[in-house]
Amino acid sequence: MQGLRMPDLKIPSRVLMGPGPSDVDPRVLRALGMPLLGHLDPAFLAIMNDVMEALRGVFQTTNRLTLPVSGTGSAGMETVLVNLLEPGDQALVVVQGLFGQRIVDSAKRCGAETHVVEAPWGEAVDPAAVERKLGQLPGPVKLVAAVHAETSTGVLQPVRPLAEIAHRAGALLVVDCVTSLGGCPVEVDAWEVDAAFSGTQKCLSCPPGLAPITLNARAEECVRARRQPVQSWYLDLTMVMSYWGQDRVYHHTAPISMLYALREALQLVLEEGLEDRFQRHRLGAQALAAGLEAMGLQLLVAPELRLPSLTTVTVPAGVEELRVRRELLNDCGIEIGGGLGPLKGRIWRIGTMGYSCQEKNVLLLLTALEQALRRQGRETAPGAGPRAADAVYVSSRTGA
Amino acid sequence: MQGLRMPDLKIPSRVLMGPGPSDVDPRVLRALGMPLLGHLDPAFLAIMNDVMEALRGVFQTTNRLTLPVSGTGSAGMETVLVNLLEPGDQALVVVQGLFGQRIVDSAKRCGAETHVVEAPWGEAVDPAAVERKLGQLPGPVKLVAAVHAETSTGVLQPVRPLAEIAHRAGALLVVDCVTSLGGCPVEVDAWEVDAAFSGTQKCLSCPPGLAPITLNARAEECVRARRQPVQSWYLDLTMVMSYWGQDRVYHHTAPISMLYALREALQLVLEEGLEDRFQRHRLGAQALAAGLEAMGLQLLVAPELRLPSLTTVTVPAGVEELRVRRELLNDCGIEIGGGLGPLKGRIWRIGTMGYSCQEKNVLLLLTALEQALRRQGRETAPGAGPRAADAVYVSSRTGA
Repeated sequence: MQGLRMPDLKIPSRVLMGPGPSDVDPRVLRALGMPLLGHLDPAFLAIMNDVMEALRGVFQTTNRLTLPVSGTGSAGMETVLVNLLEPGDQALVVVQGLFGQRIVDSAKRCGAETHVVEAPWGEAVDPAAVERKLGQLPGPVKLVAAVHAETSTGVLQPVRPLAEIAHRAGALLVVDCVTSLGGCPVEVDAWEVDAAFSGTQKCLSCPPGLAPITLNARAEECVRARRQPVQSWYLDLTMVMSYWGQDRVYHHTAPISMLYALREALQLVLEEGLEDRFQRHRLGAQALAAGLEAMGLQLLVAPELRLPSLTTVTVPAGVEELRVRRELLNDCGIEIGGGLGPLKGRIWRIGTMGYSCQEKNVLLLLTALEQALRRQGRETAPGAGPRAADAVYVSSRTGA
Repeated sequence: MQGLRMPDLKIPSRVLMGPGPSDVDPRVLRALGMPLLGHLDPAFLAIMNDVMEALRGVFQTTNRLTLPVSGTGSAGMETVLVNLLEPGDQALVVVQGLFGQRIVDSAKRCGAETHVVEAPWGEAVDPAAVERKLGQLPGPVKLVAAVHAETSTGVLQPVRPLAEIAHRAGALLVVDCVTSLGGCPVEVDAWEVDAAFSGTQKCLSCPPGLAPITLNARAEECVRARRQPVQSWYLDLTMVMSYWGQDRVYHHTAPISMLYALREALQLVLEEGLEDRFQRHRLGAQALAAGLEAMGLQLLVAPELRLPSLTTVTVPAGVEELRVRRELLNDCGIEIGGGLGPLKGRIWRIGTMGYSCQEKNVLLLLTALEQALRRQGRETAPGAGPRAADAVYVSSRTGA
């Protein structure tokens, strides 16, 4: 045991342009590395307050119950579901990809009778279909859940219309905004979203490890009115709230360093301003799309449904998908993602999230991708590289 | 929103001598602040392997299923329980403090019929009482659970005898070693512990945010043989294992930075060597106890049951408990803990864990505590300060 030695930790240089995590601003890394405070230290409680207040700003809400759950994004999903759902409840989930399916799986584990409205991967669900489905279900539906930004497909599902439909049926609306929060508008109050959850490692550009959630008064009341205890001790919001709220009752030891980092990451969002940040993401995605199309590649998603944080590209016939990703990583340190589920081997997922969403990264990715495709004998249009760069340039200058 | 600004993050200087988190070695903080890798990057997968292998060393096990859960210590507890227990199972929990009670609460939420063998806070449970209780229970018992190092009382519960008792009854033995792992022997294989969980922020001196767990083949088989799905999606080991195992199937995004930190913290444990590390903790606690007793203070726990990582001291009559802790924090930046539950206001909990367990910290704490007590008019024995320091010196030199 004493003889067991590992080599020193070495982290190769990367440009993270996959579906998350994204690159992290050096200021956030510095915050992460600051010395520890105790989880009940008054100085740390002040940091918790700052984080809650800044999260309200990013979620565009005044919800009291707005805090980061001590786990990654999926823990945020689970927190919302296990607290809102009880065995025998009905839930309706809008599914257009892997993360919608994940909600279905999780809702079932809560003992909820779980129904689904589906769209093919790469498309969005028509709100009218949700309304029809709700009309067909017997008895009350506790909640409707939808993924705002489907990370497996790159589709932006409009959720605003779903709120009215859910509320007319007496249901809460729960929204997964893991890949949208901080990258495009998520207006919890204006859209009347009852509960939302996210992750830190996408457009907030903070390392993974925390899951911001927000519940409005209606959802909070639903938690308080439960007939049965929440099946998870760790994620039981009645107890978690006592720690984050006025009482400061010890529940579990918060991930202190991660909260330093989240505070700094949110500070960066506030400094940039939400509107400017959204505009930067829009430009990044438009530039990337223009460049990819100039190279003759096809995007999976129709323009009006594309995410500003994640672009999905169809792998051209005859090209080895995995080999391209390996070459990008090994030659240039660029990470992009492959497809999941039915899209495995068929698409690449290219993220332009948070700190990763920079013009220089988009240009580098396009050039490196073009090289990798050429190496597999796929001739891109003559001068595709420069044309891609031009497209980026024009799009980023005009905001077209 | 754009106008919303927070002051820069400032972390006051602290010496963490409470019940955890402990101070973190600067090398671990540096690892924490290294740039991100993707959670499926080959370089990151290698780090995961290193962490698993080093954890096996610290747990003194060859268990394949040894990994850090993506949450704090309580998430480790919940992971073990939700994966092993199914509704209708019987569980027997050994309770001598808050963290035993927490296991009871969590086991009940799994739908298990949960029985208890109790000892007063500050004492350990007699293994014979566990054996008697097992004999009285109707039908099979799925698991016996015990807290090795009870953080609420400072008691070391011997768990080795419990393994044989549990196994004779056909039950698994589950052990909470949150406050013991890395600070005193936790010999998972030699003691025949079937499942154990811990946290990173105690004797491993890594920031909070990960929960190392280990399950032996018998416990793993029990997970595989479940009749019902695990009630938690996030903590479902059949899926978590696929990510940490050979398959590397994406489950959730691992807390990457935290894993850098854990790797470095485990590296430090390996460099020091387990035996030397345990000896350092023993000396630290003995020195602290000698100093406290030289000051005329009384320890809560009998010498043979005292934890080497956490010492509990009775608050002298007429002394305001909270005022002392506030003064230690405000004047010297020293954090110690107060009592919980029935011990609230009655004890202090002083940690000597991991990087915090240094002679200079023990001496500083004793001197500062003596000052704080004098300010409340409590005369300590003449020359108690020097005598405390002497006691520390002698104890640390002789290992008495």
